[in-house]
Amino acid sequence: MKSVAKILFLFLVPILALAAPRRKVIIDQDAFGPGGPNLQPILMVLQSPDVEVLGITVESGDGWQKENVAHTLRMLELIGRPEIPVVPGATFPLVNSAEATKRWEARHGKLFYKGAWTEEWSKEVLVRRPEPHGPEVVPPLIEGDPALKPAAETAAEFLVRQVRRYPGEVSILAMGPMTNLALASRLDDGFAAGAKELVFMGGSFNPRPADNAFALEYVYTPRLEFNFRWDPEAASAVLRSPWRRIVQVPVDPSTRTLFRPGMIQAVAAATTPVARYVAAHVESFPLWDEIAAAVWLEPALATRRERVAVDVDTAADGAGYGNTLSWAPGRGPGLGEPVVEVVFEVDVAGLEALVVERLTRAGP
Amino acid sequence: MKSVAKILFLFLVPILALAAPRRKVIIDQDAFGPGGPNLQPILMVLQSPDVEVLGITVESGDGWQKENVAHTLRMLELIGRPEIPVVPGATFPLVNSAEATKRWEARHGKLFYKGAWTEEWSKEVLVRRPEPHGPEVVPPLIEGDPALKPAAETAAEFLVRQVRRYPGEVSILAMGPMTNLALASRLDDGFAAGAKELVFMGGSFNPRPADNAFALEYVYTPRLEFNFRWDPEAASAVLRSPWRRIVQVPVDPSTRTLFRPGMIQAVAAATTPVARYVAAHVESFPLWDEIAAAVWLEPALATRRERVAVDVDTAADGAGYGNTLSWAPGRGPGLGEPVVEVVFEVDVAGLEALVVERLTRAGP
Repeated sequence: MKSVAKILFLFLVPILALAAPRRKVIIDQDAFGPGGPNLQPILMVLQSPDVEVLGITVESGDGWQKENVAHTLRMLELIGRPEIPVVPGATFPLVNSAEATKRWEARHGKLFYKGAWTEEWSKEVLVRRPEPHGPEVVPPLIEGDPALKPAAETAAEFLVRQVRRYPGEVSILAMGPMTNLALASRLDDGFAAGAKELVFMGGSFNPRPADNAFALEYVYTPRLEFNFRWDPEAASAVLRSPWRRIVQVPVDPSTRTLFRPGMIQAVAAATTPVARYVAAHVESFPLWDEIAAAVWLEPALATRRERVAVDVDTAADGAGYGNTLSWAPGRGPGLGEPVVEVVFEVDVAGLEALVVERLTRAGP
Repeated sequence: MKSVAKILFLFLVPILALAAPRRKVIIDQDAFGPGGPNLQPILMVLQSPDVEVLGITVESGDGWQKENVAHTLRMLELIGRPEIPVVPGATFPLVNSAEATKRWEARHGKLFYKGAWTEEWSKEVLVRRPEPHGPEVVPPLIEGDPALKPAAETAAEFLVRQVRRYPGEVSILAMGPMTNLALASRLDDGFAAGAKELVFMGGSFNPRPADNAFALEYVYTPRLEFNFRWDPEAASAVLRSPWRRIVQVPVDPSTRTLFRPGMIQAVAAATTPVARYVAAHVESFPLWDEIAAAVWLEPALATRRERVAVDVDTAADGAGYGNTLSWAPGRGPGLGEPVVEVVFEVDVAGLEALVVERLTRAGP
């Protein structure tokens, strides 16, 4: 009996796993690249054998949508995955704007980071980025311009269509501002409830200080995080939609993480197209979005999850515009704020190992 | 030379210290007692030999002003310090109200703590308190009712008069909501600039979790602190006044502190009237206000101070009403937010030793 069990474990379980349908996911991302922190998490998911990526929907955030789409297409081209749809989404947030943000800053003080609205790059965070430019401009890409073309559909339409096609099966892995998801929710009242789950990176609760410059932001504004702040109304609308399940990865678990030089070396030691692409461009940012991808791929990497009622401050004139709001479950105002699973801590060694493993393995 | 230096150190320095004029202070406090955390810090200052307490000005906050005044008078009576003026101040905040707070809670969720507006005491924080009541009611005091009478003046008038009398000499040690100080600032444009300094307990930046129930508040609302929240407009007005120096003690350094049972035992072992009074009533609260008193008495107990631009969110309809706002110096909106010295960490052992020493020593 013992050896039968062993045979079952060694052979049958992997066979069953391979036979099981792959987990369907749509990745929604402000895919500003190639060295930024947005593209590696997409690659982690693309490299996972048990996952079917239905498409990548793209919005503005760290960079403008058009440029983000170009980076994503070029990446897929270089790694040999041209079959993955790249679907252009929102260029502008629902309500928020560059001008409103300037007026807000004059009243309430400078934001630490403004993504595509950045007028000049902060001296505190050294980055290799093209000079700030308008939404219609796609400067020449340092990784080369793509020949691949984006999908003709809009991101919101694509999201609605795929969720209707596979009711209860599609996970939404959202790692940028939630404009596309808010539009999908308003296009189709059944969108959120029709998806399997929403797993997103966004928001900030009580992040701990870190020894890197990125966490300086949280010293003054611990509740402020860029994805929420770029489009607060979208984030609130998406949170209040009737999802079956929401998993939130705020900045909290990221402050002790970094794409460390040792990880870059480990990736550079591999010779696959994915590893070559990453090694050529990756910079040492905190693993903000990698954590979101990782806890969706390997839920056990989240070592502390808590159920918290969450919303976003949408009072545009207030000092707290875009801040994460939270309550103990049942203590909120009852305006639709959902109880979400918030990931507060992760297994950092396990996370780093998964990142390196996915970015160095052979493609599926 | 060595022995001469020793003699100087052992005898002359203490003699000089005794000969030096005592440091003048007005204590402003929502002196809800006797077991609450508000009266011990007053006693610490009263028991300090190098200090002259010009008076104690009282406002509403944890409890209503009338009841707070009665507790303060009874304490002075029991410890034999009837010469200290107790000056009744504001009953209500400048703008905020119980009704506005109820409406705010219906919109934005329940506050963790509402002081004198509490409708029922939280089950999470066990307290021995009279049932919630209105501002005109002074229930029978468990420590006995005072025969001493309060000063006839108002707190704001007293503050203005004393600061004019001793220009540049009076420290204001404020440990409750800042309504009285805002009134004084508006009564006399020269009030803030005429004082030596403002040292206050209030606000919250990035408090660390603690293993006591009091810190639960900061899990959901890390920028929310009661003194600011009771009267946000007063706190902002006071901060924006032209003080020579502001030292802020937020909740941040308090989360690792508690009036521990060992400290209560140490106080109970003494037989002075002060020790007897404290031992009979004190409860194990975090040392919120004791820290403010301590860093004014012994500045070296503050082990980390940082210069931060600070203000208070006064958007009454917003989710962040009363929240602490902060910026790196020079990065604020320029609306008068001052750069203050914020005490982020204290020497906890030294703090506890000072608390016990002041509460057990013979009176001055």
